[in-house]
Amino acid sequence: MYLYSNILGTFVFSQNFKIREKILFTDDESLKYFPLLEEGKQLPAEKKFLDKFKNITDLRQEKDGTALLRVLSEFRQYEKEFYQKNILLTRKQVSESVTPDKLIMQTSNAIDELTKTSNVLVKRLREWYSFFLPEFEELMKDNEKFTEILTKKTRTQLLKEYKIKNSMGSPLNNKDEAEIKKFASQILELFKEKKEKEKYLEKMMKEHCPNLSDVAGVTIGAKLIELAGSLRKMVMMPASTIQLLGAEKALFRHMRNKKIKPPKHGIIHEHPLLQKAKSSEKGKAARVIADKILLAVKVDYFEGDFIGKRLRKEIEEKLR
Amino acid sequence: MYLYSNILGTFVFSQNFKIREKILFTDDESLKYFPLLEEGKQLPAEKKFLDKFKNITDLRQEKDGTALLRVLSEFRQYEKEFYQKNILLTRKQVSESVTPDKLIMQTSNAIDELTKTSNVLVKRLREWYSFFLPEFEELMKDNEKFTEILTKKTRTQLLKEYKIKNSMGSPLNNKDEAEIKKFASQILELFKEKKEKEKYLEKMMKEHCPNLSDVAGVTIGAKLIELAGSLRKMVMMPASTIQLLGAEKALFRHMRNKKIKPPKHGIIHEHPLLQKAKSSEKGKAARVIADKILLAVKVDYFEGDFIGKRLRKEIEEKLR
Repeated sequence: MYLYSNILGTFVFSQNFKIREKILFTDDESLKYFPLLEEGKQLPAEKKFLDKFKNITDLRQEKDGTALLRVLSEFRQYEKEFYQKNILLTRKQVSESVTPDKLIMQTSNAIDELTKTSNVLVKRLREWYSFFLPEFEELMKDNEKFTEILTKKTRTQLLKEYKIKNSMGSPLNNKDEAEIKKFASQILELFKEKKEKEKYLEKMMKEHCPNLSDVAGVTIGAKLIELAGSLRKMVMMPASTIQLLGAEKALFRHMRNKKIKPPKHGIIHEHPLLQKAKSSEKGKAARVIADKILLAVKVDYFEGDFIGKRLRKEIEEKLR
Repeated sequence: MYLYSNILGTFVFSQNFKIREKILFTDDESLKYFPLLEEGKQLPAEKKFLDKFKNITDLRQEKDGTALLRVLSEFRQYEKEFYQKNILLTRKQVSESVTPDKLIMQTSNAIDELTKTSNVLVKRLREWYSFFLPEFEELMKDNEKFTEILTKKTRTQLLKEYKIKNSMGSPLNNKDEAEIKKFASQILELFKEKKEKEKYLEKMMKEHCPNLSDVAGVTIGAKLIELAGSLRKMVMMPASTIQLLGAEKALFRHMRNKKIKPPKHGIIHEHPLLQKAKSSEKGKAARVIADKILLAVKVDYFEGDFIGKRLRKEIEEKLR
């Protein structure tokens, strides 16, 4: 007699390969037992049969494949269930494929879009408000500050506080002022949301990519993962590719026309240690930084120890 | 003796055109008196001198220009003040140039941008949430509803309510769920702000362009003003231009290549009465509607009576 289990259940076969007994799994059991099946561990259902029958061979332990093949032909009747359970398993695997780096990329993207949209709306707010107090609009260059002040102060208050005499702007009635204020509040909320998401990104990066965060910085680190496509893909890249991530346009421009110099760096251009480097040393600095970033991301991916501080120090020493 | 006033003040000149007495205006007085000067009305300062001197001629009433010219040469000493007062006046005129139609255009623009930005952010939200519950993201097509539900329900609640079994999405921890919820709340606020601005636009349109609002509808009406550049410019346009406002691209395409048919309508394409018309009658309908829109906007600009209802009825009759 033979014992055989798969995601459908545990089956006992007669000597001539007909099903004699079976325990079918529920969907939940299939999902629960599947990893055990892969690892060859004994299932509770199997134990039951092993206790009950003597001279029973566990086909999964069996070296001879022919018995297994003959058993499998019995499963034709379960074709539909087999299909459904496999879909179930696939769903579960898809669901488990949402790795932290995907959330990091989404958040980094959301931050970009919050930046873009709040800028578009501030531009509109500025144009609108400049009908009423163009002098203040001119003077207050910072977008967030400008927006915040509009949510708090009336035109009359601003005229006094900023000592603006004979404004070119038109007076503003309460109704119109209230509309501008509401619009400004909305935009201010977007600025706040952006900051919240930046904090969230930092927390995720520090948790899942502590080394990368320390060597590249949270923002550049997240952008690099985004440009690479995933943490895994980034780990597989040569350092020279990481060095140029985000400079694809410039790179292809160089490849089409060799007279145009190749780019020295992509998004890591914003790295503070690269910013500090002399322009003649930028190329070297970019290479050193990209090297250490690759090392850092490898340690993160394989969940090694925290060596970020040491790597950063090494960059600083090499660039001195 | 001559009496002469300008924005600097009121002056008394001797027979040989030297300044003998003067009352200089403060900045506030200049702004206050300026419209009176233009209209030739007597100023308080002039009355003072007229009471004091006999045989004095008001140069502004004088027909002979030569005396005036000789008086003006005396003003060279005041060049700087003259320049400053003129700037003051210009500022005031600029400030008065903020007409309601400018606010209407700003608001209409703000609505467009709120629409665009909320759509961009919803797209991001959808992509993000589909990691966790792709089935719900698929099923809920309405952007605003989708966003609103995410601000209220957890993934677990949605799984139950929408009877989703074995989701392909990954489970969602509280921390990540809170971030998504905050993001959704932000977007929902943008949707709300858009509705508020639509109400505000409607109020302004009904107040300043009641006829246009009735004949074209609030949204199309505001868009037409925007495309024309101002209410004044729109009033000056022929009806055929109004008919094609917003179809500039198609029109120029036709002008470059006569084989391409000219467009029949621009933004008024969205007008419900045009939508209802048979496709063979669209051209005629567009013409009739543009005609009446021009009439309506003229009445609005010159602040005539409300005839919007009558005009709309006339369109309906012509299109029957």
